[in-house]
This record gives sequence, structure tokens and C-alpha cells, in this order.
Amino acid sequence: MKVNGKNYRTIWIHPEDEKVIQIIDQRNLPHAFIIEDLRTVDQVALAILDMHVRGAGLVGAAAGYGMYLATLEASSHDSFDAHLKKAAQKLLATRPTAVNLSWAVSRQLTAIEKGRSYLEKVNIALQTAMDIADEDAGHCQKIGQNGLHIIRDFASKKNGSQVNILTHCNAGWLAFVDYGTATSPIYAAFDQGIDVHIWVDETRPRNQGARLTAWELSEHGVPHTVIPDNAGGHLMQQGYVDLVIVGSDRTTYTGDVANKIGTYQKALAAKDNHVPFYVALPSSTFDWEIRDGCKDIPIEKRDASEVKYISGLCNGEIKHMLLTPKESPAANFAFDVTPARLVTGLITERGICAANEKSIGRLFPDILAQYNK
Amino acid sequence: MKVNGKNYRTIWIHPEDEKVIQIIDQRNLPHAFIIEDLRTVDQVALAILDMHVRGAGLVGAAAGYGMYLATLEASSHDSFDAHLKKAAQKLLATRPTAVNLSWAVSRQLTAIEKGRSYLEKVNIALQTAMDIADEDAGHCQKIGQNGLHIIRDFASKKNGSQVNILTHCNAGWLAFVDYGTATSPIYAAFDQGIDVHIWVDETRPRNQGARLTAWELSEHGVPHTVIPDNAGGHLMQQGYVDLVIVGSDRTTYTGDVANKIGTYQKALAAKDNHVPFYVALPSSTFDWEIRDGCKDIPIEKRDASEVKYISGLCNGEIKHMLLTPKESPAANFAFDVTPARLVTGLITERGICAANEKSIGRLFPDILAQYNK
Repeated sequence: MKVNGKNYRTIWIHPEDEKVIQIIDQRNLPHAFIIEDLRTVDQVALAILDMHVRGAGLVGAAAGYGMYLATLEASSHDSFDAHLKKAAQKLLATRPTAVNLSWAVSRQLTAIEKGRSYLEKVNIALQTAMDIADEDAGHCQKIGQNGLHIIRDFASKKNGSQVNILTHCNAGWLAFVDYGTATSPIYAAFDQGIDVHIWVDETRPRNQGARLTAWELSEHGVPHTVIPDNAGGHLMQQGYVDLVIVGSDRTTYTGDVANKIGTYQKALAAKDNHVPFYVALPSSTFDWEIRDGCKDIPIEKRDASEVKYISGLCNGEIKHMLLTPKESPAANFAFDVTPARLVTGLITERGICAANEKSIGRLFPDILAQYNK
Repeated sequence: MKVNGKNYRTIWIHPEDEKVIQIIDQRNLPHAFIIEDLRTVDQVALAILDMHVRGAGLVGAAAGYGMYLATLEASSHDSFDAHLKKAAQKLLATRPTAVNLSWAVSRQLTAIEKGRSYLEKVNIALQTAMDIADEDAGHCQKIGQNGLHIIRDFASKKNGSQVNILTHCNAGWLAFVDYGTATSPIYAAFDQGIDVHIWVDETRPRNQGARLTAWELSEHGVPHTVIPDNAGGHLMQQGYVDLVIVGSDRTTYTGDVANKIGTYQKALAAKDNHVPFYVALPSSTFDWEIRDGCKDIPIEKRDASEVKYISGLCNGEIKHMLLTPKESPAANFAFDVTPARLVTGLITERGICAANEKSIGRLFPDILAQYNK
């Protein structure tokens, strides 16, 4: 997608040094656009942990590139396999909820194993990292085309008057390699001249909506309004929302959706007001093993300081402020799980399906078969 | 309630000058405790509008004192009645949703009218303002005693293990003259040695939970945890919440509850997880004329800057920061309406009742009769 008119992905190989990965350090957005170099697997792990990069697809792509950097590092270590295993563990330990991370690491380990020499292993790791990133971008683009039909239907039903879409967190191109998931149909609709307006949930505590989604939409010129996370229910009750589209960090093969904390409350409000609630995700975000998402998807608990303090722009500088009484404890659950019963449909790269085992199975029989399901 | 061990109400007459009203300027909490003098009805109106004081009961009490200041000012005006009418309009124009405001202004106008001389009118206005404040404190104390039974029942059912209560916004003593509504049963339970723990919704965009409720509970020593507004649904789904108690800015005689934006989403989550959802309110918060709250309660829209900017403590100073892209629009609905069907019960100064016309009517037959219902 474009930043100041120039095309960017969220992660790429340094154009002058194949041993360096570059990312947009998203902690500074929307106030500053800063590109960061990553040279070691430790730097990649820290970038994921501290959310320089975040979002299901991008975390997966970063892990893929992290494993490539691990192969480069391994040359200076006693045992290639041991170093790779350690690197995999480091990356997996960063964030427990998004399944794309373990998916990418596993894919790299399986691929690298096939290399017959050190150089071939490094080359395979680089190829695989680039494949993961390219596939992510490709899948997101297809999600856009598939989801576009839903928005176009609303535009027809409303005789061309504005279609109001609510989204939570950032499932935009910044959360993936390009295009995004929840935003991909929005960009596709906007680019085709459909009149869309986006309600952007602020998404406390890390404000991915107010900082990242609002910035993305601004850069692309898409009409939008930032709202507190508290407002969506009221807007739906009063008829100001036509549909909801969110992303996912892990969706079970039965249709339960783990996504940014607060998604579940939006799904409840959508249900109560007969507003369609769609989840956009690539196949890499499915968990083919967990049946009961509410019970069994691990929910990351992050540091309380992310709730008690906030960053923003103060007299031209990014500052950090205390919001609560200094001694008050805070809790910071990063995700929640929306049960399948509240989900209208899943928008994937292969098409749209209902949020249940049968429907998902019809779209992905090949993958389900691998898991003996 | 106590601040640093000293008893305070939220509004009072200056101990050395009966023509001055004093308030706690709540915009600075929890970072600074600042007392402000109000000498004119314009200053009172601004204090309400800009939320130096806020909360259903306190806005009513402030309006009561504002009308008293208006009688003092009227001596220097041509027409007493015309000035009083203008003062009433000024106060009523500040905030449209909380019904206590118009209730207090009407009560003052009716009372003042009975005075046979200027001095008697001033004296009546002062007495009425003090009565409104005293009654508010008295009603809140009774709400505490009535709500205490509910918490005690939970403590018994849980064999004395901790009772977890979620609250939204600040319906604490800072929102009233003393005790609060949602917090009053909590203080009563805590003071009786019941093991309670409070989940405090941050309550964006003005952060009344993170700033005010957390501060109140800290000052009183009540165990609590600040959470983003996004987290309540997850906490209820995972069994971490025993009951919800919130306040109200206006409740119809049919049981629809207007309260801080986001309350409706919490009520939906409570319903979905079979968590009891109580609303605590004094009779002054009932609207005896509106039948359909979702349709007919006016919802205040405040300035977008309250969503785009935030205040906090930065290097010992209270600073103001930008959170969003500078050009992104934002919307700021101050309240929402929770339909009666989602409310387990109303805790009032006269007792607890179900959220429906019949039940409310049984508790307040005298008031309903005044409205020919």
C-alpha cells in the first residue's frame, strides 16, 4: 500500500543487504514513519514481543524472516540444528495467541530440513520467508476480492448511499504484509468507487485502531471516523452500522474466533441489532486442532503498564503518560474469543463460508485432511 | 468520603462565605486534588459543561446551587424572574442526558416562586440547594444498604471467597454528593469486612473509571483492577465476574437505562454469560415521562477532541496529547441506552425492584401518581 505516494509492504529484505530485514516500527505511527533494520533473530523476537510489528499475518511473516536470519547466524554456531531449534523457541515464546507465528516457524523448520548443505538450507530459508510474505499478500488481495461482493451487495441494497462498516483493532495492511484482511474488501470497494465510511474502534489499550487503521485509511483517502471502543453498541442500536468486518489471530476449524480484546463485545452488539458480523482471515490463521476456542485458545496477558500508561504526540514529541492512580493495579488481556454462533461468515482467500466445521471443511478439504479431520 | 483521611463531599458552601460554592475540580484527578470556587451561575454552567463536576447526582446538586447563585445575582438585575429563567435555561443547556439536572432546576423554580420577598426567595433557594445535596447523600447511603444484601448473598454463595464486581464509568461518590450509587453497596460491603474486588472499566474517552473510580477505591482501600473497556466481555466469559453494578444518568419508568457510553455492551456481555447486571440510582434519576428509552432519551454528543486527545501525568505535569492522525475525524457520543430486558434489577433508596413499569410503580406509587400513571 502507499505511504506518501510510495508503495510499501510491512516487511522486506534490505535492498542493499540481503542479510538485513527491514520493517516499519509501528509503535511510532501515526506520529512518525520510522523504518527499522533487523539483523538477528533476537531483534526479530523483540520486535514481535514489543509490537514494533504486530498483527496475525505480519507476525507470521516476521517469524519466517526470523528463521532465515537464524540460518545465517547458525554458521557461527557449533550446531546448526540446535541453533535453529533455539531460534524457533525464542520466536514461539513471544506471543501465544496468533497461530500464524507457529505456522510460519513450523513451515520453515520443515523446509530447511530438506536442504542438503548449509548454503542450500540458508537459501531455502530465504525462499520460504519470501514465499510466506508473498502468499500472505496474495491471500489478502483475494480476501479483498471475495469480501468486495458483500460490500457491493450492501451498496445495491442501499441504492448507492453510503455503506457504514465498523472495524475493531487493525486488520489492515499494517497487520499483514500488504492489503490486510478486514480492510482489504474496504480498499477494494473504495477503489471501485463504492461509497464507504468506516467506524474505527480506537482499540484500547494499544490503540491500533486510532493509531494504525485511522492512519492507513487516511493515507488511502477512505472516509472514516474514530470512535471509543464503548460506542459501537450504541451506533448499531441506532442504525448507524451496516456491517462489521474484523480480522482474527486464530480461528478454530469449528469457527470460534480469537481476535483483539473487545471483539466479542462487538459481536454481541451486532447480534443484538441484526448487523452482519464478518471475520476476514487467510487460511494460515486457522487452527485445525482446537475444537472449543473459548476454552482452549491461549489468551496472552500483557504488561499492566500498557493499560496504565499511554503514548501520544505532545508539542511535536512522542511522550508517555500515566492515566491511572500510580498504585492502582491493571489487567491486560490481549485477545478474546468470539463464539462461532455470533459470526455471520468467514471471508477467506478461497471464498466466504459460515463459521462452522462443515462449511470450513468444504472450503479447505485438503488442509483438513492433513489433520485427519 | 475521605480524601487523605479528611471527610469531603463533592460540593459545599464555602465555610467562610455563604455566597461562594466550592467543588473538587475532577478534571485533575487522580493526579491533583484541586478545589475550585464558583461565584456565578455562568461559572456553575461552565463547570458542568466542561466536566469539572459530572455524574448524575452531582450535576443535579450543582444545578441546585447554581440556581441559588442566580437568586443572589438577581438582586442586581431589573427583573428577578427573568434572570432566574435565563439562569435555568443556561444550566439546562449544559448537558441533555442526565435527568437530575432538569429535576433540580424545576424543583428550585417551584420552591423559589413561593418566597414572598427577595430575601425569602434567596433563603428558600439556599435551603433547597442544601436539601437537594443532603437528600442525594442520604439516598446514596440507603442505596448502599439496599445493595449490600446482594453482595452479601454472593459472599455467602461463594463461602466467603472474593466477590468480583465489574463497574463502568464513575457512579461513585464523585458522581454524587457522597457515597455514590454503584459504589455505595461496594463501600458498605467492604466496611463490613466482605472480601470484594472491583474490575474498573477505564471508560473512554474521559476515563472516569481509570481516573476517578480507581482513585476513590484506592483512597478507601478497596481492592480493584483497572481494565480497558474491551475486557469485560472476556472476563465474564471466563468466569471472573460475579456481578455488574453501574449507575444511570436517566432511567425511564419502564426500566430503560441511559448511562455512560459502553454500558450497553457490558449489559449484553452480562446477559450472554448469565452474570447479574444491576443498576443503582436514586429516584431523582428516573424519567417518569419517557416510555421508550432507546428511541426517546436524548444522547449528548460531545466534542471530537475528547476522543482524539487525552490528558495524563508526564514528568510530574498534567499534559494533553494527540492519539490519532491529526486529520482523522472522531465521534463522541456520551451515553447509550441499555434496554430494560438486559437489566437484572434496579437498586434505589427505597429498595430493589425489577426493571419494568409494574415493579418500579410498586416502589414509587406516589411519584408515578403525580405523573398520572
